[in-house]
Amino acid sequence: MTKPASEADEPHSQVLRIPADQPLALESGLELGPLQIAYQTYGTLNPEKSNAVLICHALTGDQHVANEHPVTRKAGWWSNLIGPGKPVDTNRYFVICSNVLGGCMGTSGPANINPATGHAYGTEFPVITISDMVRAQARLVDHLGIERLLAVIGGSMGGMQVLAWASLFPDRVFAAMPIACAAKHSAQNIAFHEVGRQAVMADPDWRSGRYFEAGVRPVKGLSVARMGAHITYLSESALQRKFGRKFQDRTAPTFSFDADFQVESYLRYQGISFVERFDANSYLYLTRAMDYFDLAADNGGSLAAAFRGSKTRFCLVSFTSDWLFTTAESRQIVHALNANGASVSFVEIESDKGHDAFLLEEPVLYRTTQGFLDAAASACGVKA
Amino acid sequence: MTKPASEADEPHSQVLRIPADQPLALESGLELGPLQIAYQTYGTLNPEKSNAVLICHALTGDQHVANEHPVTRKAGWWSNLIGPGKPVDTNRYFVICSNVLGGCMGTSGPANINPATGHAYGTEFPVITISDMVRAQARLVDHLGIERLLAVIGGSMGGMQVLAWASLFPDRVFAAMPIACAAKHSAQNIAFHEVGRQAVMADPDWRSGRYFEAGVRPVKGLSVARMGAHITYLSESALQRKFGRKFQDRTAPTFSFDADFQVESYLRYQGISFVERFDANSYLYLTRAMDYFDLAADNGGSLAAAFRGSKTRFCLVSFTSDWLFTTAESRQIVHALNANGASVSFVEIESDKGHDAFLLEEPVLYRTTQGFLDAAASACGVKA
Repeated sequence: MTKPASEADEPHSQVLRIPADQPLALESGLELGPLQIAYQTYGTLNPEKSNAVLICHALTGDQHVANEHPVTRKAGWWSNLIGPGKPVDTNRYFVICSNVLGGCMGTSGPANINPATGHAYGTEFPVITISDMVRAQARLVDHLGIERLLAVIGGSMGGMQVLAWASLFPDRVFAAMPIACAAKHSAQNIAFHEVGRQAVMADPDWRSGRYFEAGVRPVKGLSVARMGAHITYLSESALQRKFGRKFQDRTAPTFSFDADFQVESYLRYQGISFVERFDANSYLYLTRAMDYFDLAADNGGSLAAAFRGSKTRFCLVSFTSDWLFTTAESRQIVHALNANGASVSFVEIESDKGHDAFLLEEPVLYRTTQGFLDAAASACGVKA
Repeated sequence: MTKPASEADEPHSQVLRIPADQPLALESGLELGPLQIAYQTYGTLNPEKSNAVLICHALTGDQHVANEHPVTRKAGWWSNLIGPGKPVDTNRYFVICSNVLGGCMGTSGPANINPATGHAYGTEFPVITISDMVRAQARLVDHLGIERLLAVIGGSMGGMQVLAWASLFPDRVFAAMPIACAAKHSAQNIAFHEVGRQAVMADPDWRSGRYFEAGVRPVKGLSVARMGAHITYLSESALQRKFGRKFQDRTAPTFSFDADFQVESYLRYQGISFVERFDANSYLYLTRAMDYFDLAADNGGSLAAAFRGSKTRFCLVSFTSDWLFTTAESRQIVHALNANGASVSFVEIESDKGHDAFLLEEPVLYRTTQGFLDAAASACGVKA
């Protein structure tokens, strides 16, 4: 089994290392330093530095958005959307994607060695928020010498980061595309996250978060967490269409607890393959960051206040069968933006693929992204 | 902690003990014997034996439908519906409720001592189905000398039993009331069950099902399973209304993995309290029985064939916000009954309480049940 720990400290990516005397001030009041940010870039930054597109990844994503993944050897998670000649055309745009703060693929997180102790942070890592992730990304954007991003694009937890970028740094975001997300995490979504965390923590190999020192990993607990979460990423109709009640490699029930049904076999595979590339503590930290996300609460109870005076162009996208982040939640953001007279378009895409639709073959998403981005680029004078 | 094991073998209920030479033939092809069935009755069977109402309980219910629970000391789970002067009036009806086959409250199940070995069955217990549960109940009804039940009523897994009763023993069921259920378990529901089972089995204290012999119990795994399942029993709007993003005993996030949010605290309590009264192996067996339920598949692929020539009166009930067993699934049953020209009424109750609505304060359910049952009783000449 590939150890994510090594990717955490010595990732197959470029790494920005920020020394301890320039710590990141966290929303909790704590400071984090030294700090490292692992990132990938695609395409070339133009001399005007006006063609930079920041991609924000989701809970279980990482910076390998458009290149082969160093652990799984699979294609980048958005390689259908991003690349030469793709909707986000890397012949025209300079695309940046960094691993989020709290992640396990090279940006500082619980799987990294804590230089103060010489062992992995584990639960000594400070609890972080979506805003903290964005402030870390801003350090990277500073380092790359980019004053204003042409666009920030992301889905799910990535969409939350897009919203936080637009709220925290309105002058640095020309265009923002939050996909399949919400301005706050719902009670039901917090509940699902809590079950996943309890599954991890119930695993005796979690060892209160100090599993690396014990030479073990809570693979069973993390696998259960992933299985449960995975159901929420799909729609009932997608599950019905893909699996229904079809048996796996048999024609009748075995009257046992084997994976008789294809859907069971599929879910078990999802759990097993996930633990090979993901750190259990990172899962706890990132789900927690999503739970805490509430843009209205951060702005005196008013979502509109989060975008006051914003000049950013927005394009929101939701999917009809997404029950984790519903169209209604995207509409709330649209209303808040409308209240500010902001430039906003909203596309609800008809799909039965559930929340995962944003990662899958969805031609309307491709066209929407390309149209929105190219229009923004033209407005900024980026050469075609 | 109260040990369900003792309730399994020596329950606080009446017990029908069926000797080994009269085993139950199971759908798997195996036989189970000896067999015990724990049950409660309320009211008096009339001389004509025409006023018997069988209540079928759900996954985590039991026979203590209208009396104080011997373990939790709480009121019976349907004591709002059943009792003297209640919609199911025990002054008029003789109400029977037995613990299901595979349960842990006194009917034979994995927590019972296997007389062949002297230790708890554990996973040596045969995998059972909804039909097997119903055939065991039929033994009890035989024992009570009742040829025909006035009504069989149940919700969720209890509703599946009602459907199986009407299909297997059409002449023994005058009226059937399946509530918040389906004629087959959906792919999504199988998926949620599988996550729960994996959570139990991932607990090292599960010991491949032999935990009683080791003097332990997989409480953490079962608790996680219950937490996840509990989310599916509620609706998003119920969770929003009850909890939203409200904090538990604090005014701001603690930036930790404590139960900051009320919904987390609530779920943890649901998990902890469940393991005090329920057996982990029973949870595996009963979820498996639900997964296997598919009335159409049992009848050559035709749901209509499951009710061919049925003279039973049906009343189906669904709840608008129930996403575990949707109104669409109840409608499929209605259509199959209509295809047989059966007597069927269907009530979709407006509620935001989700699947759990059938157990909660729902006046429309009370009126529907009372009206349907009293009409059936009048048709059968049961004195008011």
